[in-house]
Amino acid sequence: MTRPTSRGAVRVDLNISLDGFMTTTDQTPENPFGDDWSRLTGAYTATRTFRERVLGDTSGAGTTGVDDAYAQAYFAEVGAEIMGAGMFGLHDNPDDPEWRGWWGDEPPFRVPVFVLTHSPRPSIEMAGGTTFHFLSASPAEALERAHAAAAGRDVRIGGGATVVREFLAAGLVDRLHVAIAPILLGRGIRLWDDLRGLEAGYEVTAETAPSQTTHITFDR
Amino acid sequence: MTRPTSRGAVRVDLNISLDGFMTTTDQTPENPFGDDWSRLTGAYTATRTFRERVLGDTSGAGTTGVDDAYAQAYFAEVGAEIMGAGMFGLHDNPDDPEWRGWWGDEPPFRVPVFVLTHSPRPSIEMAGGTTFHFLSASPAEALERAHAAAAGRDVRIGGGATVVREFLAAGLVDRLHVAIAPILLGRGIRLWDDLRGLEAGYEVTAETAPSQTTHITFDR
Repeated sequence: MTRPTSRGAVRVDLNISLDGFMTTTDQTPENPFGDDWSRLTGAYTATRTFRERVLGDTSGAGTTGVDDAYAQAYFAEVGAEIMGAGMFGLHDNPDDPEWRGWWGDEPPFRVPVFVLTHSPRPSIEMAGGTTFHFLSASPAEALERAHAAAAGRDVRIGGGATVVREFLAAGLVDRLHVAIAPILLGRGIRLWDDLRGLEAGYEVTAETAPSQTTHITFDR
Repeated sequence: MTRPTSRGAVRVDLNISLDGFMTTTDQTPENPFGDDWSRLTGAYTATRTFRERVLGDTSGAGTTGVDDAYAQAYFAEVGAEIMGAGMFGLHDNPDDPEWRGWWGDEPPFRVPVFVLTHSPRPSIEMAGGTTFHFLSASPAEALERAHAAAAGRDVRIGGGATVVREFLAAGLVDRLHVAIAPILLGRGIRLWDDLRGLEAGYEVTAETAPSQTTHITFDR
């Protein structure tokens, strides 16, 4: 499939378990992320790039090598991001028009972010280059807006799980990168459901890092 | 977990798709294996070891390297094998007491093979060292017989899918090797169902071959 040359690629990056789950189910009020989330994303959050880009740690700490190369690619060349309302945090404070999400005062995106919601609200400009825009739109419509904002750079579909699956099922994703952690979660939302034969339209690569994380890419 | 030192390990080797299916669903009367089976097992059947050991091709043709190393390990040190009635071929000729299965006159196992069936029949000695024994037994009981026959070497649970899942669920497998083909089958029998946390009792490794097949091992 081809795309207009003036447009960047539509990209998805995910961490999944060996049994294909991209969400975890062990959250509690005392442990709101749950232990499984850190097991699922541990190789990524240990990278130097994650530590610098998301945590603001400029000490140079963190892993380098295969996992870090994919982390660098994650942040490179992205000109706009699309995410679901849940990933922004709207579900946590649906009735507070002043709620600025749970990504902190300086979110790690540093590009325009289009939040899909049935209840749009005014845009929010954050420190560091991130502006959140709120759209009630189909995946294809949201992509139009995001491509325009990205001005030729890539558009990332950030999540959550349901939003990513919608874009994949609609054939809108040009590059899928999946980091598979060698753990079995047993329950959650499955990435691969109903995607039989997806590889036919893509070049697929696999690579295992010393962390035993396997990186799979689908590129077209 | 420990096992008596006089016993070999209980091993399982499988080829699965990226979405976790270990069976294929595209068989037809004209194409009894289906195209998906060759896509699922292609990296394995391309190895020099498979060609020599299963096809009897001693020309030295076939791939070497990572995939072949796992193929060599597959055949090494196995002293007995357990398989389901379907894998032997009983389901294809349930009423023919002379049926010798569909593994040919000289099956590739070359060790005692215990076939699990509710309708036991006399043992069959084949050329090349394979003897088929027919047992109506639980997984644990079958293992007792197989360990005795293996005389300290390993016991392989050969398949099919349901039999392998029974042994895994019962905690009877010491070494699981899974070769993941970079394809999405979308349907079939899932290997990983109901195995949440399996990795806790094992050391897990991952390695990707130039064929883009990823080899995962669970060892205890």
